[in-house]
Amino acid sequence: MANKTIWKRKDLLGIEELTKEEIHLILNQTFSFKEILERPIKKVPTLRGKTIALIFFEASTRTRFSFELAAKRLSADTVSFAAASSSTVKGETLKDTAKNIEAMKVDLVILRHSMPGSSYMLSRYLEAGVVNAGDGSHEHPTQALLDVFSIYEKKKKIEGLKISIIGDVAHSRVARSNIFALKKLGAEVTICGPKTLIPVDIEKLGVNVTYNLDEAIKDADAINILRIQKERQKETYFPSIREYIKLYGITEERLKKAKKDVLIMHPGPINRGIELFQEVADGANSIILEQVTNGVAVRMAVLYLLCSGETIEEKEK
Amino acid sequence: MANKTIWKRKDLLGIEELTKEEIHLILNQTFSFKEILERPIKKVPTLRGKTIALIFFEASTRTRFSFELAAKRLSADTVSFAAASSSTVKGETLKDTAKNIEAMKVDLVILRHSMPGSSYMLSRYLEAGVVNAGDGSHEHPTQALLDVFSIYEKKKKIEGLKISIIGDVAHSRVARSNIFALKKLGAEVTICGPKTLIPVDIEKLGVNVTYNLDEAIKDADAINILRIQKERQKETYFPSIREYIKLYGITEERLKKAKKDVLIMHPGPINRGIELFQEVADGANSIILEQVTNGVAVRMAVLYLLCSGETIEEKEK
Amino acid sequence: MANKTIWKRKDLLGIEELTKEEIHLILNQTFSFKEILERPIKKVPTLRGKTIALIFFEASTRTRFSFELAAKRLSADTVSFAAASSSTVKGETLKDTAKNIEAMKVDLVILRHSMPGSSYMLSRYLEAGVVNAGDGSHEHPTQALLDVFSIYEKKKKIEGLKISIIGDVAHSRVARSNIFALKKLGAEVTICGPKTLIPVDIEKLGVNVTYNLDEAIKDADAINILRIQKERQKETYFPSIREYIKLYGITEERLKKAKKDVLIMHPGPINRGIELFQEVADGANSIILEQVTNGVAVRMAVLYLLCSGETIEEKEK
Repeated sequence: MANKTIWKRKDLLGIEELTKEEIHLILNQTFSFKEILERPIKKVPTLRGKTIALIFFEASTRTRFSFELAAKRLSADTVSFAAASSSTVKGETLKDTAKNIEAMKVDLVILRHSMPGSSYMLSRYLEAGVVNAGDGSHEHPTQALLDVFSIYEKKKKIEGLKISIIGDVAHSRVARSNIFALKKLGAEVTICGPKTLIPVDIEKLGVNVTYNLDEAIKDADAINILRIQKERQKETYFPSIREYIKLYGITEERLKKAKKDVLIMHPGPINRGIELFQEVADGANSIILEQVTNGVAVRMAVLYLLCSGETIEEKEK
Repeated sequence: MANKTIWKRKDLLGIEELTKEEIHLILNQTFSFKEILERPIKKVPTLRGKTIALIFFEASTRTRFSFELAAKRLSADTVSFAAASSSTVKGETLKDTAKNIEAMKVDLVILRHSMPGSSYMLSRYLEAGVVNAGDGSHEHPTQALLDVFSIYEKKKKIEGLKISIIGDVAHSRVARSNIFALKKLGAEVTICGPKTLIPVDIEKLGVNVTYNLDEAIKDADAINILRIQKERQKETYFPSIREYIKLYGITEERLKKAKKDVLIMHPGPINRGIELFQEVADGANSIILEQVTNGVAVRMAVLYLLCSGETIEEKEK
Repeated sequence: MANKTIWKRKDLLGIEELTKEEIHLILNQTFSFKEILERPIKKVPTLRGKTIALIFFEASTRTRFSFELAAKRLSADTVSFAAASSSTVKGETLKDTAKNIEAMKVDLVILRHSMPGSSYMLSRYLEAGVVNAGDGSHEHPTQALLDVFSIYEKKKKIEGLKISIIGDVAHSRVARSNIFALKKLGAEVTICGPKTLIPVDIEKLGVNVTYNLDEAIKDADAINILRIQKERQKETYFPSIREYIKLYGITEERLKKAKKDVLIMHPGPINRGIELFQEVADGANSIILEQVTNGVAVRMAVLYLLCSGETIEEKEK
């Protein structure tokens, strides 16, 4: 039976504005594309003749690779632009860039930019679709979708699961997008980290807050460990790295207090020996590398839905 | 009826050496490709199996994007190299680079380099075709071709039109290439800017010169506004930016003195509030974004003609 | 009759571990692909749907271009990453990078890294194939294969030939890989350079050593001249560049002492007027540019063998 929800948005800017049905539509689509990634020939002609521009104002090899691979496996053409986003790159310039890209008849723009809301701004100026690949500390929707997909694949559901997010929640677009997605799908979300790294009004998003790692770990079905962004921490939000490791670093010892089948997740790249230790990162509970695979599949699904505006099922009817 | 002129050059190095017929051949070809850009699937298999190298010794995102999109929409493969052209990059090195690229059996090289004449030098060493994507302050032929095409598309002719070019003509390859193209096609060209930015012997190219903006604007059918290249102006050629804006900045107020249907053009990126103001750049007379679209089409035409050496009409006979 | 040797390795990491038969298999395959490079359409669909990642931690435009062209002419998709390899890029990070790339379902990784053995390390972590595109001063196998192919193409054999390698052998992965390949195929190899640039135990590899250039040149069938890596020479291994030129620079005068049909080779880029002079580099004996062409063909052969694991002849049976 065909999936009745049809994708109608031209953009994927954030999880906050998506409905539960839209998230499920992307997840279902992701299953189809993940199957393609297991084949010897991983390429399908779905987006042949479409042009996708990757505009990265922040360095990110893996996210760019993941989107680029997703695009190429759908047979889209890609053009890529990477630059540092300096303080002089003002909104007006972003608009000009956008209008120029549009004038070149690009079908989809994937934007990473340090300014929260940048992809929303871009979207307003463009008829072409926009994918937010990270806008400052605001949202990173495809990361949340791949995280949710990864949990769903293992646990066969999201509703009713207990998910803990550990670390620097205050600066994390990954955490924000995850909270939105998980709550919409009915999970119980606990966030945990040093007080200075937890936003004061975070409970408004419907999450539990604890500063005690053992408590966050105890009943969790999945633990999503955030990267300590050493490069972003100009001010000291916690006494020292050593203190952080002691209180919040996920070691094998620590994991003994968790459920036997808890999923260990990390958006990468891992600071090994800081927020996550070797034996856990590479251990039996870790699904970190499957997250990377799922990242390509979920991005194929997103590119496909934005470029075609209908589900495969709909098309096949 | 088939177009009787056949493209015979292996390179596109400058407008100066082209005949009127050759320019028309490119413009006619551009119309065919522009039509393709309006389709949902913008890709044609015309140059499948051809390899095009983009060698950019000066940063230029838009021009590179435009050429790369043009190549990919013709199904050519591209390899791309970007580097700063330092004073140590001497001619001999350029020759070695050229011979190596040729040995790799590349079909076409697109070169941007700060040294005037660099693409001519490259062309002499190569059997492969060369496209000059800007050589210092010398020429930028595809920019002039897209400018001329954009005027032609709107006014249905070039002959007899009055075109004004405003700004830093002395340092502008865009201005030089435009003057050559427009004069060959029979336009009347007026250049206008501060005395220090107008070459002393520019009248030899058959253009009118004025230092008074209102005079340049008055009867113009199109006004092509050059970018003030702040980054290139080590010496001060005009008293101050403020003075320049006052005398030569194109504001809505200023534009009232122009014809109602005057075309406003700019090669981009615009310094908004300096050589061109917001309300004019985005106003009804502006064809700046259409120039960008036409840039892709004209580059498709150029790549096609250089790689195939015949017109589509000829081929279809 | 089909070639009976079948390629069984998942990687090409070095020449040291290859058998004579494996080298011949690659050379034979190279002849097939070189023929394709002479066609107007140089592209074959052999690796359609395969994804090849180019990970370059050392800058190298030509080698990257050569691999990228090889991949594209086989219709593989490429994703490319270039970064400086700093001292902080430790083995663990390389492993994480590797596992991430693998998780993205990349079929083949081409790695250049300043650390000797880096591609071996990568290979152990990956199910995907790895090609060593240069690992510090250790090996550069595709360079040696293209060198051997270039000699073979001209002399119709390798066995019994006298090959001299001139210059900074101590820091040269090109020299090491060449020595392994030439010795396995039965050539007599002489190395020549200043004492400080010749490893003390190099005779163990079965080569002759001389510090006298005329002696190295006298009976040689081919002279492979190494690049003086000025950028790598922090310590002074020879009195001065002037002294080096005088003793080891290959001039036309010097070449008079060589055989009339000696082949002049260089891995590029040439320091003209230092290790090799203009008139010899561009002279009748030079096959330097043919080496570049052969580089693309040999890399097509390597990518093909690693991705398919069988010869074309085998496949066609």
